[in-house]
Amino acid sequence: MIGIGILGYGYWGPNLARCLGECEGARIAAIADLDPAACARAAKRHPGIRTATGIDELLDDPEIDAVAIATPVKAHFGPALAALRAGRHVLVEKPMTMNSGEASRLVDEATRRGLTLMVDHTFAYTPAVQKIGDLVRAGEIGAIHYYDSTRINLGIVQSDVNVVWDLAVHDFAILDAITSERPVAIAAQAASHLAQRPETMAFVTLHFASGMVAHINVNWLAPVKIRRTLIGGSRRMIAWDDLEPSEKIKVYDKGVTLTSDRDAAHRLRVGYRTGDMWAPKLATTEALATEVSHFVDCIASGRQPLTDGLAGLRIVELLESAHWSMRQGGRPIDLTLERKAS
Amino acid sequence: MIGIGILGYGYWGPNLARCLGECEGARIAAIADLDPAACARAAKRHPGIRTATGIDELLDDPEIDAVAIATPVKAHFGPALAALRAGRHVLVEKPMTMNSGEASRLVDEATRRGLTLMVDHTFAYTPAVQKIGDLVRAGEIGAIHYYDSTRINLGIVQSDVNVVWDLAVHDFAILDAITSERPVAIAAQAASHLAQRPETMAFVTLHFASGMVAHINVNWLAPVKIRRTLIGGSRRMIAWDDLEPSEKIKVYDKGVTLTSDRDAAHRLRVGYRTGDMWAPKLATTEALATEVSHFVDCIASGRQPLTDGLAGLRIVELLESAHWSMRQGGRPIDLTLERKAS
Amino acid sequence: MIGIGILGYGYWGPNLARCLGECEGARIAAIADLDPAACARAAKRHPGIRTATGIDELLDDPEIDAVAIATPVKAHFGPALAALRAGRHVLVEKPMTMNSGEASRLVDEATRRGLTLMVDHTFAYTPAVQKIGDLVRAGEIGAIHYYDSTRINLGIVQSDVNVVWDLAVHDFAILDAITSERPVAIAAQAASHLAQRPETMAFVTLHFASGMVAHINVNWLAPVKIRRTLIGGSRRMIAWDDLEPSEKIKVYDKGVTLTSDRDAAHRLRVGYRTGDMWAPKLATTEALATEVSHFVDCIASGRQPLTDGLAGLRIVELLESAHWSMRQGGRPIDLTLERKAS
Amino acid sequence: MIGIGILGYGYWGPNLARCLGECEGARIAAIADLDPAACARAAKRHPGIRTATGIDELLDDPEIDAVAIATPVKAHFGPALAALRAGRHVLVEKPMTMNSGEASRLVDEATRRGLTLMVDHTFAYTPAVQKIGDLVRAGEIGAIHYYDSTRINLGIVQSDVNVVWDLAVHDFAILDAITSERPVAIAAQAASHLAQRPETMAFVTLHFASGMVAHINVNWLAPVKIRRTLIGGSRRMIAWDDLEPSEKIKVYDKGVTLTSDRDAAHRLRVGYRTGDMWAPKLATTEALATEVSHFVDCIASGRQPLTDGLAGLRIVELLESAHWSMRQGGRPIDLTLERKAS
Repeated sequence: MIGIGILGYGYWGPNLARCLGECEGARIAAIADLDPAACARAAKRHPGIRTATGIDELLDDPEIDAVAIATPVKAHFGPALAALRAGRHVLVEKPMTMNSGEASRLVDEATRRGLTLMVDHTFAYTPAVQKIGDLVRAGEIGAIHYYDSTRINLGIVQSDVNVVWDLAVHDFAILDAITSERPVAIAAQAASHLAQRPETMAFVTLHFASGMVAHINVNWLAPVKIRRTLIGGSRRMIAWDDLEPSEKIKVYDKGVTLTSDRDAAHRLRVGYRTGDMWAPKLATTEALATEVSHFVDCIASGRQPLTDGLAGLRIVELLESAHWSMRQGGRPIDLTLERKAS
Repeated sequence: MIGIGILGYGYWGPNLARCLGECEGARIAAIADLDPAACARAAKRHPGIRTATGIDELLDDPEIDAVAIATPVKAHFGPALAALRAGRHVLVEKPMTMNSGEASRLVDEATRRGLTLMVDHTFAYTPAVQKIGDLVRAGEIGAIHYYDSTRINLGIVQSDVNVVWDLAVHDFAILDAITSERPVAIAAQAASHLAQRPETMAFVTLHFASGMVAHINVNWLAPVKIRRTLIGGSRRMIAWDDLEPSEKIKVYDKGVTLTSDRDAAHRLRVGYRTGDMWAPKLATTEALATEVSHFVDCIASGRQPLTDGLAGLRIVELLESAHWSMRQGGRPIDLTLERKAS
Repeated sequence: MIGIGILGYGYWGPNLARCLGECEGARIAAIADLDPAACARAAKRHPGIRTATGIDELLDDPEIDAVAIATPVKAHFGPALAALRAGRHVLVEKPMTMNSGEASRLVDEATRRGLTLMVDHTFAYTPAVQKIGDLVRAGEIGAIHYYDSTRINLGIVQSDVNVVWDLAVHDFAILDAITSERPVAIAAQAASHLAQRPETMAFVTLHFASGMVAHINVNWLAPVKIRRTLIGGSRRMIAWDDLEPSEKIKVYDKGVTLTSDRDAAHRLRVGYRTGDMWAPKLATTEALATEVSHFVDCIASGRQPLTDGLAGLRIVELLESAHWSMRQGGRPIDLTLERKAS
Repeated sequence: MIGIGILGYGYWGPNLARCLGECEGARIAAIADLDPAACARAAKRHPGIRTATGIDELLDDPEIDAVAIATPVKAHFGPALAALRAGRHVLVEKPMTMNSGEASRLVDEATRRGLTLMVDHTFAYTPAVQKIGDLVRAGEIGAIHYYDSTRINLGIVQSDVNVVWDLAVHDFAILDAITSERPVAIAAQAASHLAQRPETMAFVTLHFASGMVAHINVNWLAPVKIRRTLIGGSRRMIAWDDLEPSEKIKVYDKGVTLTSDRDAAHRLRVGYRTGDMWAPKLATTEALATEVSHFVDCIASGRQPLTDGLAGLRIVELLESAHWSMRQGGRPIDLTLERKAS
């Protein structure tokens, strides 16, 4: 039985607490939040579980083997580092940290100590993303030509992070989960349509060495809500609409084939192929429940989590690079240079 | 009665011929095409109308006052210039020419001779675009924050022009029709997913001095057909789905308002507003019929067409700039520098 | 402060308890259920509220002014009658009772004692139905020509009530709320596609003296979920899709007009009218919260509830008549004869 | 080469002429219409084909082997009988005749003379209906539990036939094509919402001995256009949306299974099954082209057409029975009695 301390009981903490509370193999030992009102809510919802005010109180508790951190992004690094140094496993909200330097330090600390460090990239645990990953790995899609995602609605305009950190981060994490290829370039254009506020819309493009292109359109000020991702492959194409209640993923047996043309030996001929469409049944399990169970399993078995610290670091690096591109009006950033430099 | 000669009877020519044939005030005098089979089809569909093989035969005919050119793009400039020099009015397919130098020469020639030069930006004459333009000009939308267009499907992969010239050109022309503001920067990223073929997908972003941003997502290799444009304004927002049979345009009384926050004098507070949605009835007139009628009116009255040569030039300039950006991996192009230079 | 006892804590009881618990002017005094497990769940969710095993314990409690009954249909009548006889106000689940005789007795009892008797026709309190009612009463729709409802999905096949009692009852209650006209005839055809089970699909048609027709298509074994109601009026038409997240109600300025034809004096000519579509903003209040608050208000003020005992009786009568028609293979039942007889 | 005469060049005749004109093995010899303007249109569209004023002129022509009749319904019987008597094969618009007596006489005449008599039930030749028929015959759907069709829009209100004859006839013909079972009872309820006009909305229910139920909802005065048919089977379910551009047919691996319950030996337990959804690719061939080609093949080979005279008779009988039911307020009509009587 893994004893868990939860740090942060604001927007996401209650979800973590609910799922951890129902997770076999885990036991919530304490819930901590700076805000007494949050602690009171936690106490009411989880009678019998101790509340605390901060990470120190959690780390003093010998029954706590792992800490789940759901504080604001800027308050991820300090508690996570403290927890690792105190020999505790860590599950931290996305994005993992404010910058890649901090992310690297957490990864190093966890590696050196042999502790489980996992980032809460929730989408990676949804039945939809897991099915897409399975299809990709089984070769059903062929080579991925593009990933084109639209993630827009009239959303909460945040004051501390922009729309890339709020929404595009999901697509970075999804891409990281379904393909092992890393992007070689990134460009991001953005605009803010509210005074004194961070960017409210952005267009991010990622290029990969294989020729794959990813495009992400995020917007907090859209009249309609859209959560739609198209994935074009050499064999099949996927249309994923996350707002569809039942058929979220549709697999199209469509494509274009190139055949050599007899009449023009040096020229390839384009052929169009349209076949059946197929919507595989998806499990109805809740992503966060799957995820916390995976966290507990990884602690027990010593296995590396699907969304480990390195995945968290990769996503933070992309957020940083997107930011640099945005600051330069959308200039593409060569990610291979950065990697060589590091 | 304006006598008209049609040059080019391939894909679009028959549509021009049909609409011009039914247009009051116009009379088709001849249809010309290099291909005898095309001439035969024209003769069968329009018995009694003379066929010809090229522009020269049309210009020899004193009954021809105007020429409508529907040849491939690279064959626009020569015949258009010849027609203008021969004192004929010209309606030319979009994009107007292969480059802005040619476009400028046509504009100069027409201006000097007092002839009508019009470009077939068909979308500008659709009831949907005309309604959007009316709403914008009437102030119903407020300041336009963004124009976000997705124009994708499993389309014909062309061998001579890329997806920007084929599809994004529509959005350039639509933007030109609904706003008088000209972009100050453009960036375009593209990829080809077929060997030896032009780019099959592209993402184009336009920036305007007012803060307005336009984003255009075009793709020939998508599993689903989408023709959807969102326009966000300070007062209202529009969702235009051109595939909807009846309610193509939806106007949302939605938005975000900033009010000064008493508690934090230096801070603005975000308020969300969601009201009714309204789908204005659109006329069911065919855009091309409206357009050729406008062409004939402009010739008769001497008025400047809505999509005149200068509009055609502006669109060709954008296509060129998008191309330069694409060639540099998506580097933003400052359009004000170019204008100053010219 | 009205003290309330809740009887039945199975499927619907917890919703009632949640809404009553948050309702100003009401206080839950006790929750009763025969099943100890249900009582345990109630105690856990509502710490501090007493649990009980049946109606008698509730009626013994002088702090209980009103009873909310959420037991299975066949267990509505007994407790409701006992509560009324004990001078308590009653809110009872729909359908009110198993037959109209029982319903009449409850109405009589409540009337004689001046107690509030209300039936939980939840749909009548949804923002959608309230908006439709407002539009109808304001004359925006004109004379209602038809109400055509499809309410199907792969639903829970129940063992004690058929699909008419489970689903069509909603439409009976909605009709009762938006129009004061009572049907003059009813016909119902049904079929069961599962052995030993009640009818799984049914088609019910109601005729009204004004010429209005209502048609209800209910089905537990449909591959897709549909909740769509069309209302055709002489002035406008409504399409209500209850599964739409935001624009549930669309009002169409469409119709057919008859004008006298000059050429044929004795003949009317049909004209078609299609105008704008309009989706009024709906409140986002929860129907059940609105409803329990209305119940408490009616008790305090002595006003007659919108869905009072007589409304409950009317709906039970329709269910009975639908049943008789079904038993005779769909023979239309004259409802005016029945009323005269009674 | 089969020589064909076309009778009637109003709404549908031009489509027949176009398809017959392009059909291998057929040659249009003449087109006849009482209206000189219709003949002029036919002559313009089909230069070189003789026009005529009526059936007699067609039957006088020895080059005409078969007659395609596209006159109004009341003008089907006379010309069809004359053509058969003159030894000509006949293709006649749906519904075949005004009543079953006429239909029977045509069937008898064709049978006695060994001529091909075919009814233009166009839907039976659509790729969608043919795919559904294939799935049903292959056992993929299992036993059909129900066929539930909604066929509504703001349509042309006709003055001579009601909405059942105009729209429900399609469903009668589709049912006839996909199942060999004949209904045992029919009930139809209808209403007219326009003065002096035939019924504008109707609900028709068909019962079959196997337990299958068909329900048809047709309406000329609906605010939205719907063409959706659900087919529930014991193994799978189909949702057919004829307005979908690409995925018209969706096959759902969904259903309910009954298993004996250990705890209650005499009771069956309901289990729900939801699996993948699959949208088979449909051919893009035009139904009418398939149909006229089938007509020509049947003439040449002597094979019985899929939609032969007997199918036409069955559909007319259903229209008659629906009419009787409507006249009696929706009373169910026992179709087995009628068959025994005849």
